[in-house]
Amino acid sequence: MANISVLGAGSWGTALALVLADNDHQVRLWAHRVEHAEEMKKTRENKRYLENASLPDNIQVFDDLTESVEDSDYILLAVPTKAVREVCRSLITALDSPATVIHASKGIEPKTYKRVSEVITEEIPEEKRRAVIVLSGPSHAEEVALRQPTTVTVSSENLEIAEEVQSLFINSQFRVYTSPDLVGVELGGSLKNIIALGAGISDGLGYGDNAKAALITRGLAEVARLGTSMGANPLTFSGLAGIGDLIVTCTSSHSRNWRAGFKLGKGENLQTVLDDMGMVVEGVRTTEAAFQMAEEQNINMPITSGIYYILFKDANPREVVEQLMTRVRRHEMEDLVDVLDQKMKK
Amino acid sequence: MANISVLGAGSWGTALALVLADNDHQVRLWAHRVEHAEEMKKTRENKRYLENASLPDNIQVFDDLTESVEDSDYILLAVPTKAVREVCRSLITALDSPATVIHASKGIEPKTYKRVSEVITEEIPEEKRRAVIVLSGPSHAEEVALRQPTTVTVSSENLEIAEEVQSLFINSQFRVYTSPDLVGVELGGSLKNIIALGAGISDGLGYGDNAKAALITRGLAEVARLGTSMGANPLTFSGLAGIGDLIVTCTSSHSRNWRAGFKLGKGENLQTVLDDMGMVVEGVRTTEAAFQMAEEQNINMPITSGIYYILFKDANPREVVEQLMTRVRRHEMEDLVDVLDQKMKK
Repeated sequence: MANISVLGAGSWGTALALVLADNDHQVRLWAHRVEHAEEMKKTRENKRYLENASLPDNIQVFDDLTESVEDSDYILLAVPTKAVREVCRSLITALDSPATVIHASKGIEPKTYKRVSEVITEEIPEEKRRAVIVLSGPSHAEEVALRQPTTVTVSSENLEIAEEVQSLFINSQFRVYTSPDLVGVELGGSLKNIIALGAGISDGLGYGDNAKAALITRGLAEVARLGTSMGANPLTFSGLAGIGDLIVTCTSSHSRNWRAGFKLGKGENLQTVLDDMGMVVEGVRTTEAAFQMAEEQNINMPITSGIYYILFKDANPREVVEQLMTRVRRHEMEDLVDVLDQKMKK
Repeated sequence: MANISVLGAGSWGTALALVLADNDHQVRLWAHRVEHAEEMKKTRENKRYLENASLPDNIQVFDDLTESVEDSDYILLAVPTKAVREVCRSLITALDSPATVIHASKGIEPKTYKRVSEVITEEIPEEKRRAVIVLSGPSHAEEVALRQPTTVTVSSENLEIAEEVQSLFINSQFRVYTSPDLVGVELGGSLKNIIALGAGISDGLGYGDNAKAALITRGLAEVARLGTSMGANPLTFSGLAGIGDLIVTCTSSHSRNWRAGFKLGKGENLQTVLDDMGMVVEGVRTTEAAFQMAEEQNINMPITSGIYYILFKDANPREVVEQLMTRVRRHEMEDLVDVLDQKMKK
């Protein structure tokens, strides 16, 4: 039994808190807003973000960050990528011993192009952290809350601590694997949101499953290309944190990135979509970051570019998708071979 | 404009005949059963197998095989894998010049483990054939008939003729790519049906998208492992004929392999399911072939084996899926690394 603080009481943070509580750990769940924390304390539910989530006794709710991390053996960060820096800064003074920080955020920082573990490492000084671990994979929070079978991957530069974290979470419904590829696991989960937006756009335009499968397949290839150039092992994109997460995100209306894309495909503009959803859509900022990186490094990412133009330059979704479908390319393997070439040259 | 015979008037043969007719070719569509041919001649539709398929004037319907291949520049075989040998044998006498045979069948022959192009090559003597080409990819016939955007891959040992075939089919909705990996393209389309059965079983049991994504991801890895041992390029499994086709088959109720799996997951037995569907479910025989090959070659295929036991040995679907979920494996990359290792050793 360990003491674990879960920072962030959105759908994913809450679902992971339930897994940890099922495993008999003592869980401290921190909500950013006082009203939200009060609501959960009173109702012992989190109706705002997660149905079917009745909070058991071994989950305590907090609105004070310092209190929530007192005596913690592990800290699980489940906040939007945008909030990671700020939460880390607030953490520094609250920590009285080096923290083992697990994060479950799927994004990349625009402009700096930093992965979440890099942001954490930058913000929390070395003497205040023991290790940084990512947890990622095909996992709708709603299904985890229902104790439906789910698989995820954890990764860290320190494999031993990754295995510790694996033991914290694993149970008969929630299967946890380790991977040595921290960069790939973080990028798989982040970059897949770009393609999920695209899949939503295709569905919103009324295209069928054939078109969507083509877009997902081609999208995965370009995302793997970017990821490899950032240091990921291309094989990770064929695993749970890559294609696994991509499938779950692109084919289910649970996914907010897919939903945002769907509304864009229906002709709504980005601001209206984001205002309506009232939840963070990580893929939007990740598309921006990936587009900028691809431009700078001269990496061919036609799908990402198309989505970027739809999101930020008012491009017409139908025209973009039609252009993508009719691009001149005769040999399918061209891109895939590129990825392997990069790997071989390493 | 070319003369093209389409042998097999199921949903896929008919949809491909429509694509060719859209491109102004003269199409001869052969139906195995006289009543079916008569019905199509009379109604100029193929209601039995494909909705929204009104046959244009440049599609002629035949029930006589010899007549249907008269003056043909190309022959497109779109019959169940099981019928390929027999149709090829009947073709030999009907052919008066060497045929260019395109096939669109997604299966492997049990016991011989032959791919469809191998069966064709075996049955049609060398002097009667110019080339054998496969056409495969994520393509529900129903969507192709609606002229929804669709992508497929063609492959042949003769790349020049593959490019000829690409030109026959390509138009603004139907995008055709070439691949040099004949073995991989054939195996991708065939082996994915095993995993589609599994995805259907998981859905039929009431598991969610998280479980299905895990199964598809792990399934793709094991299918790639077998395919690589049979001579495929593992990268093909990351392309349209691999993961692309797998996604479309596993996530859509159009797919008969998924539907068969769904009924099995609901507790029906194989014979009842096959009797009810009245259409060929290629994945059943392919599972048998893959299981046998994996046993003989000592290849680790837990998902395929599980499905084999459900199909042929009355294993309980829930127990099989639970066993697959709780298998001991700590490092996700183990299998994936195996695939790369095999590739590297080539």
